[in-house]
Amino acid sequence: MSATSITTPNQAMPQDFATVFARLKPHMAALDVFLRGQLEAFEPEIRDMADYCIDTSGKRIRPALVFLSGWTGDEAIPADVVRVAAVVELVHLATLVHDDIMDEADLRRSRRTASREYGPEAAVLLGDALFAHALHLAAQFPTPEICHAVSDSTRKVCAGEIVQTLRRGTTNITREDYFRVIDLKTAELFRISCFLGGKLGGYPSEYVEAVTRFGRHLGIAYQIYDDLADFFGQETRIGKTLGTDLQSGKVTLPLLALLDRLPADDRALLVDEILHRREPDLAVRIRQMGELGIFAVVTAEVETELVHAEEALAPHGALAPTALLKQLCDTLRNQVRNLQLPVGV
Amino acid sequence: MSATSITTPNQAMPQDFATVFARLKPHMAALDVFLRGQLEAFEPEIRDMADYCIDTSGKRIRPALVFLSGWTGDEAIPADVVRVAAVVELVHLATLVHDDIMDEADLRRSRRTASREYGPEAAVLLGDALFAHALHLAAQFPTPEICHAVSDSTRKVCAGEIVQTLRRGTTNITREDYFRVIDLKTAELFRISCFLGGKLGGYPSEYVEAVTRFGRHLGIAYQIYDDLADFFGQETRIGKTLGTDLQSGKVTLPLLALLDRLPADDRALLVDEILHRREPDLAVRIRQMGELGIFAVVTAEVETELVHAEEALAPHGALAPTALLKQLCDTLRNQVRNLQLPVGV
Repeated sequence: MSATSITTPNQAMPQDFATVFARLKPHMAALDVFLRGQLEAFEPEIRDMADYCIDTSGKRIRPALVFLSGWTGDEAIPADVVRVAAVVELVHLATLVHDDIMDEADLRRSRRTASREYGPEAAVLLGDALFAHALHLAAQFPTPEICHAVSDSTRKVCAGEIVQTLRRGTTNITREDYFRVIDLKTAELFRISCFLGGKLGGYPSEYVEAVTRFGRHLGIAYQIYDDLADFFGQETRIGKTLGTDLQSGKVTLPLLALLDRLPADDRALLVDEILHRREPDLAVRIRQMGELGIFAVVTAEVETELVHAEEALAPHGALAPTALLKQLCDTLRNQVRNLQLPVGV
Repeated sequence: MSATSITTPNQAMPQDFATVFARLKPHMAALDVFLRGQLEAFEPEIRDMADYCIDTSGKRIRPALVFLSGWTGDEAIPADVVRVAAVVELVHLATLVHDDIMDEADLRRSRRTASREYGPEAAVLLGDALFAHALHLAAQFPTPEICHAVSDSTRKVCAGEIVQTLRRGTTNITREDYFRVIDLKTAELFRISCFLGGKLGGYPSEYVEAVTRFGRHLGIAYQIYDDLADFFGQETRIGKTLGTDLQSGKVTLPLLALLDRLPADDRALLVDEILHRREPDLAVRIRQMGELGIFAVVTAEVETELVHAEEALAPHGALAPTALLKQLCDTLRNQVRNLQLPVGV
């Protein structure tokens, strides 16, 4: 990629997002109304705080997966699908509240995090209350199946985050270790969103099984993209500070690939820097990644997962959700393509 | 109370506990086996940590309430009752893990807290995983009713803890504010334990409704006792450091009663101390409480709640659980009686 790509504003990603998400506008509006209505269920003392957490400008990817996986036409926004979309979003919001405590983050999507707004103590409990309410909504279905699936996924997400947290500042991490963590912490909630959407859409079990696999691979692809964006993103576009993973000693796939390919002495320096939690030099790492072709290596991994995702849906091309879900894959491809390489690389 | 009561070891409480809890020995053993078995369900990476949290020497009051409220005879330990006892205990253990993070506590029941053992970051998520697994177990019942009740209670417990946390270091707290918080943070889980026990015991709805009210009043009584013990307990017996509430700026009923009764100038000093989070002098406050009869005032509140609890069960004297539950009230009465007043008061 040449230097020009930095100065040319590339509008492809927002437009792509618009294509898929435009059709979900009424669904997302219904979700918003539903989530606002849930505030009544919170104890009056914590209602404003719950409102603060819900009132985000998030992408709502997981609800989108619920809606798209169970897609039966533009007109249909069944109440139970909206409820399940709210369940997965609340679980996700709860994990964000807890993540921001651990990362000591000041801002999320340009607003103070709940942890900064109410203090970490209250934020721990507020995240708990959001979790509890998600499960409460899940328990409003006639059978305990939804509750079962959501609570199981929630535990897996937590397990993934715990393992990642405990590994910070360590470097003896394999590619398999990395994939295991993102499978748990990210792919699991994508997976269950697709499962629940497909199920509530009334589709046959073969499709539900297929779209569940689709969700998992898309989730893995998305997390790898996200980890790549931490090195190669544009801050204004991805909406967060670059290099936060490196800063916090989190060894993600781009860094693993770099460790793999660096000459022994440079590698030893990087390992030493991570182990001793020394202030990292992001620019140096990005330059090294550029020189060693890490961007291409990692995007190839994203592509592999996207192909797996599409393959899962291949036998179900005739069903309404399939084309829309494939558009999601292309959206992510575009996002990856639009990540910025630094000047001169 | 005279000085002699300090040097005379008073064995009444443990014996009382023994009376009621002796009959629950096989139940608690079944609960232990069940909880150990649950570790398998946790992801291998976090199994040891979950084990660490479950492996406590806690009193398991909430499971006891499940077992006693649904009591149908010494021989009966139905599997679903054990499962629901595990659910309420896991919710409780999760709140303890999160409480210990917020209180920056080093020890709980003579062991390092999960927060100290694994770090607060991992402990936040570990608490979440325990919550999630509790709900997962709740979802294993044929109807979503249990999940519904438990998730609702969990949110209430969190709401109570949040309000309490945000009020730390403030003094404009009414008696009603205090009771609202303990209703949410403590009585709710006692209440739901009794509800679920009665329900699973197959008892008629009038009894279930009555034992649910019993649980709530017992929970309120228990929390008032616990708050009193923070000033008047024996550290070796209650197993925690005295004065932690005062230290953390938590205004509980004994302190509210003291604020009410202190002469204006002394009151202003105490308010100022709390507002400015100045190092409190526990001995002074205990002496003042002794002089102003606060012990009697607060124990009267415990008694009022215990009477309400017993009254709820009055129409159900013929049912097997009733006598056992009343013994629990007497146990708490004895515990209150055995709190130590300081020398010379």
